[in-house]
Amino acid sequence: MPTITPRVLKGFRDFLPDAEMARASLIKKLEQVFASFGFVPIDTPVLEYAEILLGKGGGETDKQVYRFVDHGERDVAMRFDLTVPFARFMAEHVDELYLPFRRYHIAKVWRGENTQRGRYREFMQCDFDIVGTDSASADADIVLTAAQAMTRLHVGDFSLRVNHRALFNRFLAHIEASDKSVDILRVVDKLEKIGQQATADALSSLVGSPLARDILEFIRKEDSFEATLDKMRSFCAKNDQAADIAKGRMLRIMECVSAAGFENRMVLDPSITRGLDYYTGMVLETTLAAMPEIGSVCSGGRYDELASLYTDKKLPGVGASVGLDRLMAALEAIGKTLVSGESTQILIINQEETQLPEMHRLANLLRADGLAVEVFPEPKKVVAQYTYAERKHIPLALFVGNAAKPYTLRVLGRRENIEIADFSAIGDAARKELNGSR
Amino acid sequence: MPTITPRVLKGFRDFLPDAEMARASLIKKLEQVFASFGFVPIDTPVLEYAEILLGKGGGETDKQVYRFVDHGERDVAMRFDLTVPFARFMAEHVDELYLPFRRYHIAKVWRGENTQRGRYREFMQCDFDIVGTDSASADADIVLTAAQAMTRLHVGDFSLRVNHRALFNRFLAHIEASDKSVDILRVVDKLEKIGQQATADALSSLVGSPLARDILEFIRKEDSFEATLDKMRSFCAKNDQAADIAKGRMLRIMECVSAAGFENRMVLDPSITRGLDYYTGMVLETTLAAMPEIGSVCSGGRYDELASLYTDKKLPGVGASVGLDRLMAALEAIGKTLVSGESTQILIINQEETQLPEMHRLANLLRADGLAVEVFPEPKKVVAQYTYAERKHIPLALFVGNAAKPYTLRVLGRRENIEIADFSAIGDAARKELNGSR
Repeated sequence: MPTITPRVLKGFRDFLPDAEMARASLIKKLEQVFASFGFVPIDTPVLEYAEILLGKGGGETDKQVYRFVDHGERDVAMRFDLTVPFARFMAEHVDELYLPFRRYHIAKVWRGENTQRGRYREFMQCDFDIVGTDSASADADIVLTAAQAMTRLHVGDFSLRVNHRALFNRFLAHIEASDKSVDILRVVDKLEKIGQQATADALSSLVGSPLARDILEFIRKEDSFEATLDKMRSFCAKNDQAADIAKGRMLRIMECVSAAGFENRMVLDPSITRGLDYYTGMVLETTLAAMPEIGSVCSGGRYDELASLYTDKKLPGVGASVGLDRLMAALEAIGKTLVSGESTQILIINQEETQLPEMHRLANLLRADGLAVEVFPEPKKVVAQYTYAERKHIPLALFVGNAAKPYTLRVLGRRENIEIADFSAIGDAARKELNGSR
Repeated sequence: MPTITPRVLKGFRDFLPDAEMARASLIKKLEQVFASFGFVPIDTPVLEYAEILLGKGGGETDKQVYRFVDHGERDVAMRFDLTVPFARFMAEHVDELYLPFRRYHIAKVWRGENTQRGRYREFMQCDFDIVGTDSASADADIVLTAAQAMTRLHVGDFSLRVNHRALFNRFLAHIEASDKSVDILRVVDKLEKIGQQATADALSSLVGSPLARDILEFIRKEDSFEATLDKMRSFCAKNDQAADIAKGRMLRIMECVSAAGFENRMVLDPSITRGLDYYTGMVLETTLAAMPEIGSVCSGGRYDELASLYTDKKLPGVGASVGLDRLMAALEAIGKTLVSGESTQILIINQEETQLPEMHRLANLLRADGLAVEVFPEPKKVVAQYTYAERKHIPLALFVGNAAKPYTLRVLGRRENIEIADFSAIGDAARKELNGSR
């Protein structure tokens, strides 16, 4: 008698084969793009010392972190992102590695968030970073990698919205509003969510309405990258060298991205700030034209110090993170199913138990020919075996007959039989059907 | 000032790029073999209700399980294997799936084991099972999948040692030693570790020396699969139908495996019992000829009831688990490094910052041509860029020159330069070198 009800924890999910294959297919494509840019994979433990993940004090995230005391009385926690473990990783291994270090890391993280907002407590992150260089080339590479990833995933029209945190900061210094920069950045970051008027009101109550007007004018896009950049620079002090450097950096990034053919994808959007204080240079967000409402599907930016909590070594870097769950949902919504769900290509129909060794012999030969083949293990009614094939999205069935009618390949979708006299012809006949059906 | 020492928990590991790429390469090959047999991937949560993972009571494994109370006062635990979550998964989703269901699952599990025995507390398991059928065909498929996996991984000579638990049990019933079967199985299972004499002694003290001699004779291999099987059958009662059925099953499995060309790999070894009570039919172990001392790298067997804790549905199945860490260590020891560690194929040497857009343009074109390319982000000394390439196992460097000498492709290993006049020739020249160097 079963005594335990099978169920998963709230906010946690099983992945059935079709969903898991779709996720694996998405990840594989991202990995191919990362590899083509020279990013290499790493892995870190799921459990770490709580002190490592949360810092000595522990902040706001604390409440969401799965944290406990282990058998050895250690205060441990499950990772809640891939950035903190990467910082610890770099501090620990920088001497075994080489700089600049380009890594990607695709792995699960855990946050005990409120699931009512449609969030999961276990989800995958996908981070890619270039650490150990403060250069326009690395900034451009992150933009280009994001652009190639979107192209590879056939998301349709998309835009990479970039900005430079220093230009915003220099502008705020010029209007003497630096002390309110964190609040101003937070308001501006929500512009698209709350709208122009609410943003104006929120800014006015922070800095008064004349400055609020300046800020709104500053964050408005002009007709071209260069025009927007010139306007942003003009809102800073004339002799501001930091603003000159930031402007130069953005121009250089744009030149590299344009040279690589993605000039139409990159937009300078002064309203993009990425709420975190963490970023110090370029920031980026990626918006899908078909689904702007889901927000950015790939976001990141440049930071001065990756690992200052753990090491004296200066590790400037730039990186971004792909929102896998969000991207999967978006691809599904815009009808870009990632995978046919197809695994087995040929099901060998089991007509009688005595044929079993022969069926396994044929299956093995077809596998050697590059096909995915399975033998139905029991001589059930053929209709039951067809149902199985249909549920599993298997496109072809093979009947092993007798000397008069040796092999029949059935195209299950069309309910059409192809008689094949010679075994050696099965592979090509199957491939013809498989290629045609895609 | 850094305040926290970067370190991982005892028994946990970082995977640096070379190790992670080797692991990913091993997993990819296994996935290809699984897919060729029609296995599909699934995923389950890392955290589950402790009751699900440990049963109502919780047994010996308890002490090793990472178990804690979460924010919602739930008694939760991190999975310690992939079998229990699979049982829960099948009980929960059997109506959404189809039977027989062939799945694989490659994922991390956690056990707070004593690390002094060289064990890790976080490690990967790789399980493949066929559930919902009690057939020789499915048993044979598990053996064949294991055999193909070993072949695909080029482990050298290997043997799949199989047995049938029922034959052993029927033999014990015949000699009236069934009540001591668990102890006897445990002793026999250690035969290779403790040797013939110690096994004889241990068995004698359990059942007396005449029966101990019978048991030792029973578990001795004969010259052929059939001879061993006949001997095993002859040690059971004459009219024992269960023994007849078990013998018939083993013969049928052997016929299917032989038909698929792996007859020389499968050995009937009556001393293989797999310590667990869980198995009820065929059991298997996989031994590498080059490293028998590391033990089985792929083990499993047939079970009657996968999920009886969670459902009334009868779910017989057969499956096996690949010991990934053990296999990686073995492959390394026998010199079968899994991956060259190569990621980037061409490093574009950064000679001057003004060339940056042109370098990104070329990198993008080479990527479109199927090559993995990166631009060194800063115009450092060429020797520093060479050192970087060497550390990262990058085989080729590309210098972008002037009209007189447009492109130089340098084969870093041979320190040889190839002058290339036309950009369109770079891809082929690079591929020629890359294929030659493998």
